[in-house]
Amino acid sequence: MKRENGFLLLYGSSYSDQNIYYMTKFLSNDPFLCIVSNNFKRKFVYLPEMEIDRAKKEAKFDKISSYNNYNLDELFKKYKDADVAFGKMITDILHEEGIYIVSVMRNFPSFLYKILEKEGISIDTIKNPFEMIRRKKTKQEVEYILKAQKAAEDALITVKKILERSIIKKDYIYYNHSRLTSEYIKAVIEKRLLDNDAFCEGLICSSGVDSADPHSVGRGPIKCGKPIVIDIFPRLMTERYFSDMTRTFVKGEADDKFIEMYNVVLDAQNIAFKMLKPNASCRDIHLSVCEYFESLGYDTIKKNKKINEGFIHTTGHGVGLDIHEPPFIGDNDNFLIEGDVVTIEPGLYYKNIGGIRIEDIVFIKKEGFVNLSNASKDFVIP
Amino acid sequence: MKRENGFLLLYGSSYSDQNIYYMTKFLSNDPFLCIVSNNFKRKFVYLPEMEIDRAKKEAKFDKISSYNNYNLDELFKKYKDADVAFGKMITDILHEEGIYIVSVMRNFPSFLYKILEKEGISIDTIKNPFEMIRRKKTKQEVEYILKAQKAAEDALITVKKILERSIIKKDYIYYNHSRLTSEYIKAVIEKRLLDNDAFCEGLICSSGVDSADPHSVGRGPIKCGKPIVIDIFPRLMTERYFSDMTRTFVKGEADDKFIEMYNVVLDAQNIAFKMLKPNASCRDIHLSVCEYFESLGYDTIKKNKKINEGFIHTTGHGVGLDIHEPPFIGDNDNFLIEGDVVTIEPGLYYKNIGGIRIEDIVFIKKEGFVNLSNASKDFVIP
Repeated sequence: MKRENGFLLLYGSSYSDQNIYYMTKFLSNDPFLCIVSNNFKRKFVYLPEMEIDRAKKEAKFDKISSYNNYNLDELFKKYKDADVAFGKMITDILHEEGIYIVSVMRNFPSFLYKILEKEGISIDTIKNPFEMIRRKKTKQEVEYILKAQKAAEDALITVKKILERSIIKKDYIYYNHSRLTSEYIKAVIEKRLLDNDAFCEGLICSSGVDSADPHSVGRGPIKCGKPIVIDIFPRLMTERYFSDMTRTFVKGEADDKFIEMYNVVLDAQNIAFKMLKPNASCRDIHLSVCEYFESLGYDTIKKNKKINEGFIHTTGHGVGLDIHEPPFIGDNDNFLIEGDVVTIEPGLYYKNIGGIRIEDIVFIKKEGFVNLSNASKDFVIP
Repeated sequence: MKRENGFLLLYGSSYSDQNIYYMTKFLSNDPFLCIVSNNFKRKFVYLPEMEIDRAKKEAKFDKISSYNNYNLDELFKKYKDADVAFGKMITDILHEEGIYIVSVMRNFPSFLYKILEKEGISIDTIKNPFEMIRRKKTKQEVEYILKAQKAAEDALITVKKILERSIIKKDYIYYNHSRLTSEYIKAVIEKRLLDNDAFCEGLICSSGVDSADPHSVGRGPIKCGKPIVIDIFPRLMTERYFSDMTRTFVKGEADDKFIEMYNVVLDAQNIAFKMLKPNASCRDIHLSVCEYFESLGYDTIKKNKKINEGFIHTTGHGVGLDIHEPPFIGDNDNFLIEGDVVTIEPGLYYKNIGGIRIEDIVFIKKEGFVNLSNASKDFVIP
């Protein structure tokens, strides 16, 4: 590694920065340093002494070195500032390795950036070099996503059973003699996810007018005859991959208006499905969905960016180690590639009645796509 | 807000950046922009249109504005780069507000930093201005931490019952006719935490030689007579605060060596406890713990930074919205203040036999401290 260029400097926690996890496959709550050759083939990692043995056991690196070898403690005592000391240590590491030019990603902390620059390191800020490689999911990655998806479906089946077994009294839904609430359903889902080694932070079960806000997590008793939007995006605790699925139910009887909306959303999803294949334009997919909604008189963000009713979000997004990752299926220049895993999630939202969303997760393959979601699309639960 | 200085620019996801959550109390998976006056009294938030209504409902801001008002979509179409477009939008927002000088935190993304600089914004990178205010926990915050701690204790009681009811056959532990594993215990803990609206990402139940690595999460069947280290650091799903607790058990009979180690760790913890009060030096506390271990012949990082056996980590850390936050009770210049919530967690680790750690979480008050942990410190479970 002497006198070489072409290295990328990564710094962060692999719990929160998925590029670092993708590259290192080493989980650490505390931020750490990793130097990667630009072809991603060689990886050098620098960690607190206490993490060295675990890194040797749990991950594969070309070099694992302790901060102790670079006297981080002494640097800290000298500069009395942990960030400054860390910046100096990085400089020492780079000098030792003969690296004077490094790339960093756009989210590299500006303070560390300035220290390195001041120390004479030439820094090139680059666009996410992992974007395309992370988009093209391997068989293993698809299996992980499918495992997360199965966890979501398993949880959804339990919720459906609860809704089926519930009874209606004066507009409210009762299960086991108690009023059914968003909180109860979320607790049930969370437990079923855990049975499958998955968890979902920010799980959505919103009902009635609450569901008109796509990101409302939902609270309180659930009424019959109103939409119940359940959006489950579980992450595997061990393998770290996500899936993402939404289903909307109505308990009891649904107004014609809701049934019409539900069918329109379902049709909109099918319009997107028909366009899914490598090289398909994300803009075309999203605009086709919008145009379909508009042809039936529903407002969309295509026609009017400022709306807060109708189809008010994009059609989908990539899913993997991040819950929202490229490609984004909206009005942009993304094109699908073989290996993409994306959601297709049209929805309609109205402040005074609520929202309906149907979301599947699909894998883009040479000949088109495979729907990784296997959950039924029943809407009305009698 | 015209022609004013003294503003801090925050940008990130409030799920991953706790300073942003602390300031906004608004949860969003996607990064967003917040401008805060330097006295933290005025807060202006900028969000995608879709989040506006939820922000109005869920949080309190002096101004909530949509990216639409700043034509983010048009900027994106013009620059064909989401980060560049976002940087330009921030510049426009700052210009509109008459702000030409802003502070950013050290982790502010370097790419955005450079765009703002190029656009003529004068940027001052500052050390975390929330550090002291976040350290000084309010009554409400202590209640949240206590709630998380109760969830941890509730889970631990369940684990103890399982260990009590287990039987030993040929070195292994059996519960309900099955070999007891780390995975099983972790699943039990996770479910009990969920019952209390809490979850723990990276939960530790390591046993035998695995427990010699303080951060090993543990796996596989558990043997009798060997340490079982259970480290639970649950976060409240709604209120977002953490607690942190570790207990070590031995099922069956413990060697004298383990009993001696356990008592030494317990005594070390008590040595730290006796020093806890406002203005106590974190260095003094940590070094006193190290000296006690060394006086009994146990190696520590005080004497030898390069060790990987003995007492190989620091004595404790602050806990709040982050699981590891200031103050750090190690060889540094931190002093405790009234309102700190910190862990005291001495431990001894040996590669060929395993580890023992005892961790309590305490609140520093005027007269000393309150131990927020109420879990028993039984070691051997017959």
